Amino acid sequence: MNNQKKAAIVMQTDFTKDISVSTMQGVCMSIDPELRIFDSTHEIKSFNTYMASTSLSYVVPYWPKGTIFISVVDPGVGTKRKACVAKLKNGSFIVTPDNGTLTHVNLYIGIDEIRIIDETKHRLQSTLKCNIFHGRDLFAYCGAKLAAGIISFEEVGPKYPLNEIILHKILEPTKIENKITGMIDAADFHFGLVCSNISFELFETLNGKFGDRFKLLIKNSETSKIIFNEILTFQESFGAVETGEPLLMISETLQVQAAINNRNMTSIYGIDCGPNWIFEITKL
Amino acid sequence: MNNQKKAAIVMQTDFTKDISVSTMQGVCMSIDPELRIFDSTHEIKSFNTYMASTSLSYVVPYWPKGTIFISVVDPGVGTKRKACVAKLKNGSFIVTPDNGTLTHVNLYIGIDEIRIIDETKHRLQSTLKCNIFHGRDLFAYCGAKLAAGIISFEEVGPKYPLNEIILHKILEPTKIENKITGMIDAADFHFGLVCSNISFELFETLNGKFGDRFKLLIKNSETSKIIFNEILTFQESFGAVETGEPLLMISETLQVQAAINNRNMTSIYGIDCGPNWIFEITKL
Amino acid sequence: MNNQKKAAIVMQTDFTKDISVSTMQGVCMSIDPELRIFDSTHEIKSFNTYMASTSLSYVVPYWPKGTIFISVVDPGVGTKRKACVAKLKNGSFIVTPDNGTLTHVNLYIGIDEIRIIDETKHRLQSTLKCNIFHGRDLFAYCGAKLAAGIISFEEVGPKYPLNEIILHKILEPTKIENKITGMIDAADFHFGLVCSNISFELFETLNGKFGDRFKLLIKNSETSKIIFNEILTFQESFGAVETGEPLLMISETLQVQAAINNRNMTSIYGIDCGPNWIFEITKL
Repeated sequence: MNNQKKAAIVMQTDFTKDISVSTMQGVCMSIDPELRIFDSTHEIKSFNTYMASTSLSYVVPYWPKGTIFISVVDPGVGTKRKACVAKLKNGSFIVTPDNGTLTHVNLYIGIDEIRIIDETKHRLQSTLKCNIFHGRDLFAYCGAKLAAGIISFEEVGPKYPLNEIILHKILEPTKIENKITGMIDAADFHFGLVCSNISFELFETLNGKFGDRFKLLIKNSETSKIIFNEILTFQESFGAVETGEPLLMISETLQVQAAINNRNMTSIYGIDCGPNWIFEITKL
Repeated sequence: MNNQKKAAIVMQTDFTKDISVSTMQGVCMSIDPELRIFDSTHEIKSFNTYMASTSLSYVVPYWPKGTIFISVVDPGVGTKRKACVAKLKNGSFIVTPDNGTLTHVNLYIGIDEIRIIDETKHRLQSTLKCNIFHGRDLFAYCGAKLAAGIISFEEVGPKYPLNEIILHKILEPTKIENKITGMIDAADFHFGLVCSNISFELFETLNGKFGDRFKLLIKNSETSKIIFNEILTFQESFGAVETGEPLLMISETLQVQAAINNRNMTSIYGIDCGPNWIFEITKL
Repeated sequence: MNNQKKAAIVMQTDFTKDISVSTMQGVCMSIDPELRIFDSTHEIKSFNTYMASTSLSYVVPYWPKGTIFISVVDPGVGTKRKACVAKLKNGSFIVTPDNGTLTHVNLYIGIDEIRIIDETKHRLQSTLKCNIFHGRDLFAYCGAKLAAGIISFEEVGPKYPLNEIILHKILEPTKIENKITGMIDAADFHFGLVCSNISFELFETLNGKFGDRFKLLIKNSETSKIIFNEILTFQESFGAVETGEPLLMISETLQVQAAINNRNMTSIYGIDCGPNWIFEITKL
């Protein structure tokens, strides 16, 4: 069979890139040495299934239909949480523990069908004594069989109802007159970008042009603390404002994003992500 | 020739993932653009050949027979240490400086034959003036020729006796009644797992069931300091105990491992690995 | 078409290895699932186009002719800086913002021809609203079309004069009697190696043999501060001197390099790279 006929595998974990990832790759190679395996990120914060969920949903749309994503952020490994494969509406697949990791692909891409992995058939047999590394022993093993075409999606295991999928709470963006209220979806630690879950389509209904002024309010609804409350402009990109000046822009994920040119907004203000982090913009 | 006929190359170094690794990959691609190259870890602690040895031995069993592992943790580069290729009993190969890196694959997998790399034949010629980067100029170059089938194992260079291989000191686990004494093989810095060299087979002779109580003593035999001395339970996985509670489990390497649920045991207790780090369990 | 007929893609960015890189890879896979993609480094310091330039020039010579390098260190994204593809004299290609990143390949390898990327033809259409991630939307997209053979170099866009390429200032090494004055090209943060831009060919005109004594002066011409001023020896490799002792050697890039055996010279002395960092050796 020709290489391009087989789905690529894309992995994300909270392991940092290390020998554990290499054993997952080796398991895949042992099943079919023609498989092509890519790393997305292995720097998900340990056990953070919310970040696992946003990271997946940002990456999935850019890969060809049929790609097999293996996500292993698995605080419940060895407990009763389900191990599953989800078939997305765009034709790609997610192999993951069902623990909130599917929240954003469910919301933004949609899930067609979900199946429990049958551990009696799709588990590495040489490591039965070990019950702490399903990334290698179950998810990589089963995902590789699927990518190699050894099993079909139907053969993964029994289907279960879509409404049983574990989902994180999401604050859907709402618009009242010239104000849109959403939440922070991702607080990037490297460049310090603060990305909301407000889509550019909703944002465009405010008719903002480059250079227009907005008020941005960031607050933590749990502590009721106001974290950021300033006037800034909507711009095409960083370079449009001075170093140290804040701006709004359309993120690489096509959502509304705030940043400070050449500074790390996330760490300066101690910003994090999740439904407690309110992101509210008002057109002035 | 078809891709799957050629061995995969798996690299580990202490370089961190950077441009040096990329030049090693480029050298391989220059020899044969069909070769498939994978990163294991590049985060071995600088010059730590003990960690290089355990890392290799954890990864090797999960890759198909015939895989070419290139390991470059090479504090003696440019000195008289041997550059070698070892053929393992499982059919895979290790290309490495002979400096202790082969200790654990020798112990757990076994070495069939070992050969010195003939530098007059298997060295990149364009960099003869540089004598500090055998990872690129010798190990990647020779490993790629082997993976591509350009040379056979016999053509690597002259064989030498297995008992000349440089080995780290290992404290073999011993059992006296209900007590097993071993050493710490790996102290993971990311999740904080503390893995002993006590195999699950030896452990099973204690007849421990999930939930059974053990005393774990960790001490440093060099300083005679007791680092950890507590009662804990043997469990299937982290989730079986409360956050902050210690447990024993079977590691991903099928050895006995200690951890603290959702905490970093390694950094909390300042634990490291090697024959001075005693790991002793007693069934209560 | 056979895999080896298609050029490999090698990426370097200042993103750290994360989901942004994965979306770049996905864009390439969507264009042609047969493409082979490699990471060089994603640890270029944010927005540091000087480091992007040296990193590229160190890696390029070790990859086969025709390789497509995609470099995304892009502080000017969304401004008027040119997005380009440079054809090198060795037959490989660089896809990059024209912002200084081409300085060292221009100097050491040479550029044959350079073309502006025609954004009306070679831009991902699904992300037109986003103007901050040309790495994915323009450079990966265009580079993948070139690697896949979908477009020729001529079809990238209009040619522009080589003398319009943005270049960093370089202090060319000069020799006066037994003294050579150059600059620091790279100050490695991992092992602490300090690499000058003095080639081994120029160095050889001093007739230095292993063990010969040299004076090394490192100074910052901006602050006029002398950073290092000591006698050391020229050696084949680290192991030839005691731990903690400095030495001169030929670097992996075939330039003159200073280091301290088993210590991090870069961080101990606070050394950085660029034309303000003078590196002067005198044969004694």
